[in-house]
Amino acid sequence: MAIVLGGNRYGKAEVRLVRIDRDGEEHGITDLTVSVALSGDLADTHLRGTNDKVLATDTQKNTVYAFARDGIGSIEDFGLRLARHFVGTQPSIHFARVAIEQHSWSRLSIDGAPARHSFARTGDGTRTAVVSHDGERSWVLSGITDLTVLNSTDSEFWGFPRDEYTTLAETKDRILATAVNASWRHAAAGDTDWEASFRTARTGLLEAFAGTYSFSLQQTLYAMGERVLQRVPGVAEVRLSLPNKHHFLTDLSPFGLDNPGEVFYAADRPYGLIEGTVLRDDAPPAGPAWD
Amino acid sequence: MAIVLGGNRYGKAEVRLVRIDRDGEEHGITDLTVSVALSGDLADTHLRGTNDKVLATDTQKNTVYAFARDGIGSIEDFGLRLARHFVGTQPSIHFARVAIEQHSWSRLSIDGAPARHSFARTGDGTRTAVVSHDGERSWVLSGITDLTVLNSTDSEFWGFPRDEYTTLAETKDRILATAVNASWRHAAAGDTDWEASFRTARTGLLEAFAGTYSFSLQQTLYAMGERVLQRVPGVAEVRLSLPNKHHFLTDLSPFGLDNPGEVFYAADRPYGLIEGTVLRDDAPPAGPAWD
Amino acid sequence: MAIVLGGNRYGKAEVRLVRIDRDGEEHGITDLTVSVALSGDLADTHLRGTNDKVLATDTQKNTVYAFARDGIGSIEDFGLRLARHFVGTQPSIHFARVAIEQHSWSRLSIDGAPARHSFARTGDGTRTAVVSHDGERSWVLSGITDLTVLNSTDSEFWGFPRDEYTTLAETKDRILATAVNASWRHAAAGDTDWEASFRTARTGLLEAFAGTYSFSLQQTLYAMGERVLQRVPGVAEVRLSLPNKHHFLTDLSPFGLDNPGEVFYAADRPYGLIEGTVLRDDAPPAGPAWD
Amino acid sequence: MAIVLGGNRYGKAEVRLVRIDRDGEEHGITDLTVSVALSGDLADTHLRGTNDKVLATDTQKNTVYAFARDGIGSIEDFGLRLARHFVGTQPSIHFARVAIEQHSWSRLSIDGAPARHSFARTGDGTRTAVVSHDGERSWVLSGITDLTVLNSTDSEFWGFPRDEYTTLAETKDRILATAVNASWRHAAAGDTDWEASFRTARTGLLEAFAGTYSFSLQQTLYAMGERVLQRVPGVAEVRLSLPNKHHFLTDLSPFGLDNPGEVFYAADRPYGLIEGTVLRDDAPPAGPAWD
Repeated sequence: MAIVLGGNRYGKAEVRLVRIDRDGEEHGITDLTVSVALSGDLADTHLRGTNDKVLATDTQKNTVYAFARDGIGSIEDFGLRLARHFVGTQPSIHFARVAIEQHSWSRLSIDGAPARHSFARTGDGTRTAVVSHDGERSWVLSGITDLTVLNSTDSEFWGFPRDEYTTLAETKDRILATAVNASWRHAAAGDTDWEASFRTARTGLLEAFAGTYSFSLQQTLYAMGERVLQRVPGVAEVRLSLPNKHHFLTDLSPFGLDNPGEVFYAADRPYGLIEGTVLRDDAPPAGPAWD
Repeated sequence: MAIVLGGNRYGKAEVRLVRIDRDGEEHGITDLTVSVALSGDLADTHLRGTNDKVLATDTQKNTVYAFARDGIGSIEDFGLRLARHFVGTQPSIHFARVAIEQHSWSRLSIDGAPARHSFARTGDGTRTAVVSHDGERSWVLSGITDLTVLNSTDSEFWGFPRDEYTTLAETKDRILATAVNASWRHAAAGDTDWEASFRTARTGLLEAFAGTYSFSLQQTLYAMGERVLQRVPGVAEVRLSLPNKHHFLTDLSPFGLDNPGEVFYAADRPYGLIEGTVLRDDAPPAGPAWD
Repeated sequence: MAIVLGGNRYGKAEVRLVRIDRDGEEHGITDLTVSVALSGDLADTHLRGTNDKVLATDTQKNTVYAFARDGIGSIEDFGLRLARHFVGTQPSIHFARVAIEQHSWSRLSIDGAPARHSFARTGDGTRTAVVSHDGERSWVLSGITDLTVLNSTDSEFWGFPRDEYTTLAETKDRILATAVNASWRHAAAGDTDWEASFRTARTGLLEAFAGTYSFSLQQTLYAMGERVLQRVPGVAEVRLSLPNKHHFLTDLSPFGLDNPGEVFYAADRPYGLIEGTVLRDDAPPAGPAWD
Repeated sequence: MAIVLGGNRYGKAEVRLVRIDRDGEEHGITDLTVSVALSGDLADTHLRGTNDKVLATDTQKNTVYAFARDGIGSIEDFGLRLARHFVGTQPSIHFARVAIEQHSWSRLSIDGAPARHSFARTGDGTRTAVVSHDGERSWVLSGITDLTVLNSTDSEFWGFPRDEYTTLAETKDRILATAVNASWRHAAAGDTDWEASFRTARTGLLEAFAGTYSFSLQQTLYAMGERVLQRVPGVAEVRLSLPNKHHFLTDLSPFGLDNPGEVFYAADRPYGLIEGTVLRDDAPPAGPAWD
């Protein structure tokens, strides 16, 4: 028996980058958190502390800022540029992953006119991209996190098995709320209008959530994934992680009051957690895209 | 020398309440976090553990839910109803404070039409109210928190004193960003259109931030407070707490690149913190409103 | 009616400072988060953006690091040095507040012997100090936060009033848990062994919590404050803010099981919040110490 | 092309469970956060909203509390009992994962004697277990998270490649700090003294961290994993995720001061992130243990 090194990677995480596009009087803003992870011939540093193959994480950070000088564009493209750079220029680095969160801002108005260089953070979901590159092939995931949505009706939950530990009552009308965490894998990393693709996916997720009369959050999850696959060209697979953010009807009967689906207690923990994948049956292999 | 009981209060904090208004097919949502604090003749419980004057915090929570059954309305009014109830019905409770956060939601759309009962959380600021009542008088603070805004230019900072510990360079062009935490005191707790008042205040804060050519965040703070006083009838005093969310221009010169105000590092800590009050010189006494 | 500037202050918040004391082979570590707030003749910057009286918050940060070069000592003393420096060297600054959190570390062991330069963060409470100075007088608060404690018995709660919204059952045995947030005001800012004083106060808080047979958290709060006043020389006033971290006995009867005080659900929100002051009747005036 | 359901699972997450062991006068406390995830024949609920195979997440929660009635023991054993129950009693559930976090408490003292029923939360790492069961086989991971450690010397970093984006200076003496997140896979899920095993692993991690003269965090990571494999019987594989919590030496030279490794700025973001696996070359297949 011997002890050996297994899979490993390293990089700089959570590089906070804000880029101002100064196109004349009208400014634009791009606000990102970028994380890089590299792998390759890294046995020497693990076993002996020899670092001649270890591109410093500080250098990775510098590269992120330097690449932003030329403009960022879509986060999928920015991730591809970075991932290909690291693998392409470092002989000992064979695989790069770049994960990006894009924090959204809206333009402020002054007296009804759009402000030229003033913005407010919005909180309706964070756009994400995770790009992988192995020197030959690239994989692109797009996604959204922290998009909290709620249907105040059109949700039932009944017909579930009742074992000795089951006390939950069946319901024909409940609140269904979740914080959408979704990622979708593109069949190819090629020429895509990433902005249009993201907008279509986001709208599809929201419309499927809102438009599905739901008998379980699993059913809603499937409908959301299916909608993205139907609407967004080139998407091969969708993965969703949906917390069931419970809203419990409060019992007002001790106070002589009814509660016809109006007053709820929003619970923090525990919560249900529903995770699932929806994909095309001809989806190309995922390779390391989701690792 | 003796040891004595000083000021004290108690209550239920962070009651999570969601109310669905079901007016026919079209639903509305109100999402609140409510905290109650009561004070009065509470020496017995502190000194002897005798609780006959201690309205249980569980009862306070129940009251919040029961009062929501009749509808919530503006959070200022909901707070007033609750505060007056506690003082008015409990002989030993002489003062009540109700602090409310309102989490904002927007209505979703399906195929371009507004959804009837589907919503998404938005993240552009949390509306707040803090209501106090002493049995006779009431005090109302309205406010907003976590409204993050940024000007990408029209901000300078120079002319500050240089002592032996000063290394900061002067600048004629910087990013100015903050997370607005503002509260404003109404001169009276009477008949007010709280919704219109809040909208006007919020717009005033944003427009003053965006429209002020700034030489210091203090100057911007004053302009924001002044604007609320000018625009919102009945406001006597505004208090603001504005973190200076630093965005540092990255030095790209080691890479042979210039950086004409485009690529920034967004720092977490430390940050500047600017706190200030702007008020009318005829403002009535604040009493316990801010305690 | 005119609009005027009211109270205000500004400074650098959350300066993260770690100092290594290298006394031969044996190292020590001091890990602080320091926040500075200054006030004085600051009308010019608010009203006109003129900054010649505004010691830059960047300079304040530099000062914190530079002063650490000489050693830190007790956080109360470090705060006093800093506060007096700012007021003493800046003619336009008339009041300084320095708030410090000290994150605790313990020394690791190797094969049973204390390691010379290796440490682990501990999580049993963060020591705090808040020092104020107005050019003549100084005020010192010491404290502790995030010290979570629990008694698994010797806690009752009954005899509270029952109004129409009361459903809570009385109990003769419950869990009592809280996260201690306590600050105590020293009668003078003079020559004190701050380390011994803090240890005595911390022990007193814990022993009073553990040793009090409790009929209400208010009673426990008073006992904790009283103990600090009794044990720690020179303390004039203690303020405590104690969340009642509810632990609800789970109802196992649907499963044919009893639950004799053994299985609990630990709730996040809402929680009770008990705040109170215990002081000596000859305590000197607090001045601006608690502002 | 058709759209199909891929991998999926669901369950109740973050069930907060506190158990008091009341063995005579002396109480003990076990404080857990338990998450359950189940998978099996779940196509019906995704495709049609038919729930007859969906054991409600509320039932899962109830089961956790009911099983705690008989005592918890080690979290690995508690996880095994729960995972086997779900798969063993629900014909449509073929795989269960139970992930448990154990929050640590220490016993308080009163006048030097151990308190019988009073405790304080400690913050030196959270013990974890992740148990999987497929009806036949079980897999057990033990671990620890949020164990923050620091070496104030005996860490170098040099010899790394210098490309056009490299500006980092080489160093022969730096602070090395990380928050240990480690999990180790047991070769079998059989009869193990989980308490002793965990203690040995924790000590091994700490001693390897403290005792390794480090030329890279990767080297320290490998040493930590190796130590666990060497010391803890039955462990087949260790995975570590170690953020490099940067401490930057502050430049005091503008103030005429040197800084011989004493005053540091502790940065929040970005941070390095080093992830790696150390395993025995005869480790049995991991199966779904890490999924």
